[in-house]
Amino acid sequence: MTKSPLAPAAFPALPTIGGVRFAAVSAGVRYKNRTDVMLAELAEGTTVAGVYTTSATRSAPVLDCQSKTGGPGTGRAAFLVNSGNSNAFTGRNGAEAVAAICQVTAATLGIEEARLFTSSTGVIGEPLPHDRITAKLSELRDALSVDGIEGAAKAIMTTDTFPKGSAATVTVGGKTVTIAGIAKGSGMIAPDMATMLVYIFTDAAIGFDALQALLSQGTDRTFNCITVDSDTSTSDTLLMAATGASGVDVTGNAEFASALEGLMMDLAHQVVRDGEGATKFVEVQISGAANDGDARKVAMAIANSPLVKTAIAGEDPNWGRIVMAVGKSGAEADRDKLVIRFGDILVAENGWVSPSYSEAQAAAYMKGQDLVISVEMGLGAGESTVWTCDLTHRYIEINADYRS
Amino acid sequence: MTKSPLAPAAFPALPTIGGVRFAAVSAGVRYKNRTDVMLAELAEGTTVAGVYTTSATRSAPVLDCQSKTGGPGTGRAAFLVNSGNSNAFTGRNGAEAVAAICQVTAATLGIEEARLFTSSTGVIGEPLPHDRITAKLSELRDALSVDGIEGAAKAIMTTDTFPKGSAATVTVGGKTVTIAGIAKGSGMIAPDMATMLVYIFTDAAIGFDALQALLSQGTDRTFNCITVDSDTSTSDTLLMAATGASGVDVTGNAEFASALEGLMMDLAHQVVRDGEGATKFVEVQISGAANDGDARKVAMAIANSPLVKTAIAGEDPNWGRIVMAVGKSGAEADRDKLVIRFGDILVAENGWVSPSYSEAQAAAYMKGQDLVISVEMGLGAGESTVWTCDLTHRYIEINADYRS
Repeated sequence: MTKSPLAPAAFPALPTIGGVRFAAVSAGVRYKNRTDVMLAELAEGTTVAGVYTTSATRSAPVLDCQSKTGGPGTGRAAFLVNSGNSNAFTGRNGAEAVAAICQVTAATLGIEEARLFTSSTGVIGEPLPHDRITAKLSELRDALSVDGIEGAAKAIMTTDTFPKGSAATVTVGGKTVTIAGIAKGSGMIAPDMATMLVYIFTDAAIGFDALQALLSQGTDRTFNCITVDSDTSTSDTLLMAATGASGVDVTGNAEFASALEGLMMDLAHQVVRDGEGATKFVEVQISGAANDGDARKVAMAIANSPLVKTAIAGEDPNWGRIVMAVGKSGAEADRDKLVIRFGDILVAENGWVSPSYSEAQAAAYMKGQDLVISVEMGLGAGESTVWTCDLTHRYIEINADYRS
Repeated sequence: MTKSPLAPAAFPALPTIGGVRFAAVSAGVRYKNRTDVMLAELAEGTTVAGVYTTSATRSAPVLDCQSKTGGPGTGRAAFLVNSGNSNAFTGRNGAEAVAAICQVTAATLGIEEARLFTSSTGVIGEPLPHDRITAKLSELRDALSVDGIEGAAKAIMTTDTFPKGSAATVTVGGKTVTIAGIAKGSGMIAPDMATMLVYIFTDAAIGFDALQALLSQGTDRTFNCITVDSDTSTSDTLLMAATGASGVDVTGNAEFASALEGLMMDLAHQVVRDGEGATKFVEVQISGAANDGDARKVAMAIANSPLVKTAIAGEDPNWGRIVMAVGKSGAEADRDKLVIRFGDILVAENGWVSPSYSEAQAAAYMKGQDLVISVEMGLGAGESTVWTCDLTHRYIEINADYRS
């Protein structure tokens, strides 16, 4: 698959994280000639927290992860992830497949099952050929390496056109703490826990409750603020492991929280930049709404509107469709108080196009790759910013033919 | 523009309606070489009722119509509609344009302004060149004819690929009452008053309150149950005129109500069949939901999902995406109780694909033009049926280039 035109120049040079080792193999779950299973082994004492899809039809591995999140146990832990098959809507067979994988992984790695977190991503409703995965566990174990994170990022890709990674370092009391994360996702990306799969690792020490709070709060401001197609996955999973190998406790440390949120935002933006068929990265900024909830409604109405997204694909500064989306959002709005901008270009105010507006100037702006659409509502202090991409022919091609 | 493959074979032979005359002209509002303004003149005593978009950014003509609906006055009335420009988000100029049109129309036709209902459909945010319309009013008046309804249906088209009409007759107390309606709409079609413009005429006699109640209730079961792209127009308008020329009062008559709803459903389905880029007409039936509201949430989540709609375009029986859409809908759902069918083909039950399911059989079904997707939720008695179309390359083409 051709790499997204919005992809970063290269996968970032990610630091190793004390207490974490990675491996990836080709198990042939669905794809041929590529890696499709990744293992992350986590040192004794690692804290694991997670955020999951809110879908009512979530997958067997998600249900299993949820039941284990926050549980007791301080021994070694592991994340095992396959691409090619999501093990979602697979009936009783789904839970049995998770159990079979956990059992063999536990035996092969000597890790208790309650500390094994598995994810599956790919096609829905086909039985997961779990024996292809378990047959590779010895090979995975023998391949574990502290610098295998890029290989892990590649193994979890499905329709992604580039692997996604991000890192941050924070100095706490003169000591350095490192965070590294990887993500996959490019379709079925919507507000309720947008990204399909995200794994973040740090050598910081932090307890479960504090780590879970950071993750949940950060998700609301990052992954829950991106949308590619308004569709919500059955498999969305964000797992974070804090190994404590740095010896630095970051509980309550604001810089760590900020660095973690920055890393989550970076990964969230990379997911949008790999939105299926995307050629434009679009930030939608709403201010002056009656409240934050209304601002988010307007932002999402714009970001999810097929008519807005196709206009962006056509490099058409069609601000009438922005007005339409504001109107349909369900948020309080006064047509004559709206101030609409493309980048710094004032487009509309006082219920009509601005006297200073130049269609030629706006059309030139729309040819850019990174765009900002902002709307001031003129009603209150409510704010929201979300990120999306355009809707192109390529999205149709990818999704009309995904299974064939 | 190529006619939709889902279009009816021909425009139906619509009956004349006593008390209604039509005319259409080419005013050059935006388009060249086609009619773009229609006038319907309504006899003295005609009852007019209307249903309008719920958009917070609705257009100047919609606001004007709303202010006049249900008002006093029993003299002649008229509907005047232009395509090419929606007169939406046009600031103070918008209301001034409506006033100018009403003033000249009143003077030319001798109809009081309170009985003049205007609509505009087309591009948003550009000043309506109302003088091009008023310059044609004498010509419109002189062209009025009882059999001009097909011409009227053509004059209100924008991205429509075929004119839409429907008729019904009802026998009440041995006398015949006739109803005829026309509609336009193919994009920006969403649940809140789906069709952009609909005009219905009958020679029945009925008071305003009774007629308005029939329209509002019928809209909820017809136009509010269709969706092409989840976008809501700023201009949606449904106007109905009952001239009373038949001398038959239909207040409280169940057969008239049923015939009217059938006509509205026919027009609503024609709008979906002209959905921008549509190649498949899809009925989504939900039953067994906890309540009707939940059923509608599930139906709309399926009907609006870009992943479901692109799969249908690709003739892919991708039932996993149906499961995904049920899960994201926000409705109560039990994954293991869902029963999913494509037409009569049982696809999934007991939380997994049915043992009897044949992908080849389902793939053959998906090659049809009219498709039914049904989901039994297994929870209660909630039901909902909605109609949509597939999402194709052509939708992108039409909407990425609409203004150029």
